[in-house]
Amino acid sequence: MTETSTASFPEYVAGTAARVAEALDSYTQLPPDCPARLCEAIRYSLLAPGKRLRPLLVLMAAETCGGNAEAAMPAACAVEMVHAYSLIHDDLPCMDDDDLRRGRPTCHKVYGEAMAVLAGDALLTMAFEVLSGNVRPARVAADCCLELARAAGPSALVGGQADDLEGINGLADIGRLEAIHRRKTGAMIQVSIRLGAMIARASRRQRSALEKYGQRIGLAFQITDDLLDVGGDEKALGKRAGKDAERGKLTFPGLLGVEESRRRAEQLVNEALAAVATLGPQAEGLEALARHVLERNH
Amino acid sequence: MTETSTASFPEYVAGTAARVAEALDSYTQLPPDCPARLCEAIRYSLLAPGKRLRPLLVLMAAETCGGNAEAAMPAACAVEMVHAYSLIHDDLPCMDDDDLRRGRPTCHKVYGEAMAVLAGDALLTMAFEVLSGNVRPARVAADCCLELARAAGPSALVGGQADDLEGINGLADIGRLEAIHRRKTGAMIQVSIRLGAMIARASRRQRSALEKYGQRIGLAFQITDDLLDVGGDEKALGKRAGKDAERGKLTFPGLLGVEESRRRAEQLVNEALAAVATLGPQAEGLEALARHVLERNH
Repeated sequence: MTETSTASFPEYVAGTAARVAEALDSYTQLPPDCPARLCEAIRYSLLAPGKRLRPLLVLMAAETCGGNAEAAMPAACAVEMVHAYSLIHDDLPCMDDDDLRRGRPTCHKVYGEAMAVLAGDALLTMAFEVLSGNVRPARVAADCCLELARAAGPSALVGGQADDLEGINGLADIGRLEAIHRRKTGAMIQVSIRLGAMIARASRRQRSALEKYGQRIGLAFQITDDLLDVGGDEKALGKRAGKDAERGKLTFPGLLGVEESRRRAEQLVNEALAAVATLGPQAEGLEALARHVLERNH
Repeated sequence: MTETSTASFPEYVAGTAARVAEALDSYTQLPPDCPARLCEAIRYSLLAPGKRLRPLLVLMAAETCGGNAEAAMPAACAVEMVHAYSLIHDDLPCMDDDDLRRGRPTCHKVYGEAMAVLAGDALLTMAFEVLSGNVRPARVAADCCLELARAAGPSALVGGQADDLEGINGLADIGRLEAIHRRKTGAMIQVSIRLGAMIARASRRQRSALEKYGQRIGLAFQITDDLLDVGGDEKALGKRAGKDAERGKLTFPGLLGVEESRRRAEQLVNEALAAVATLGPQAEGLEALARHVLERNH
């Protein structure tokens, strides 16, 4: 929030989300040899109004470490592309079979299943194009590609989705649930913060504080997501509420109860705040974001 | 073929394919936190016996430019991972709906549709992990990621598949057919050669000869593929023959006739040979491969 420290947090978030949307728009002005309908499907999903949580984390982590947000914008767009791809593929009929996403019909509902598969494939590929073609110096670009590939790969994001498919085998305990979420959402939140830090050439001390922050905030975010699915209203969520329970998915409120889940999320946010407290006033954006995770309603 | 110049071409190809298979095997020894069935699906498709044409081109291009094959092996594996991913997704019920690939049931037939989508996603992601984590120096790794992302992206590989979905609109002329194939198969063949050259630090003269070679050989390969679909036998192909015609797809024999298609493939191979003739005896592998494109039966 260094650049806009006079603005309130919601204003900062709105302003940043708008700049991210602009950058995403410019990265998907595809050349004329991209088939028109594919390009449309890509943009339909990527440019749909969203929280832009992951890009925000990239940019805030960079600013917290004294870097500038402009240099981190390609990485911010890359993580959002990976996020958008994973939503498109997760929503497919053969996966979660969802009709509604971000308040609009899902990609496959509008463009058909095959085009949705391809739009997802394209977005995943474009994330690496944007990173490798725009992050400087090249050494940092290569490191960013490696980190993003690991976070999106079979031991993390894709693995988390495979876990979901396979259902819960064995003990449904809190350790297992946390491990699933580390893969499913935690890894991409963690890598967002890591990319921002890498681009800002963060010190070892800064990186280690941000790692701790990212780990806590990722899990807190997932718990509040589960809580919203129990008690949220569909209009604010932009997707169907109560679907986790319907499908018998393992969730934090399902396992711990609503009160204990809320308490755990609060504790994680407090740990996240403590981790970045050492980084000085530049961390105020990350601090505000952490507090927001507890208060959000969508 | 510098390393094995005493071996015959088929021996060289078999030996190289075996080394590529070994490297692919080691890159997919996934850590225990990768869900077991996902890991199985990935390996089922990637390690199925295949021609390994693209890895072969990476390695041969590197050797032709005086580089060593070992340094180019990560790139050889990356292009094969992208190829395997594109086959898995192309075979899906919502796309080409194929039951047979490389002589075995397709990935989704064995592991289900959802797991096949994820195995493809994982392979695409892993390609960038292997490139960014293993190609040295980092500047070349970043360049390789950029080139691969472009060749696999919406203006090339993914775009070609979208073309296929949309069917042929407008004039079914040879220019349009060539443009489709440039995207669908040409771009990945071209980038295979380009990555090998980049890793070998090829001179401008070498690169320009290889670009010409890659463009010609990619198109020649597609024409002979179309010819095989008309006249090939299923056992040698490992996939169903005649399916292009069944689906009313635009093909070279369909548009030009068998004889003219054969003549055109020959001409392209001759142009490819002429392009690399200037590169001296080190190009003998690429020359043998070009001649092989005309003679292949699968």
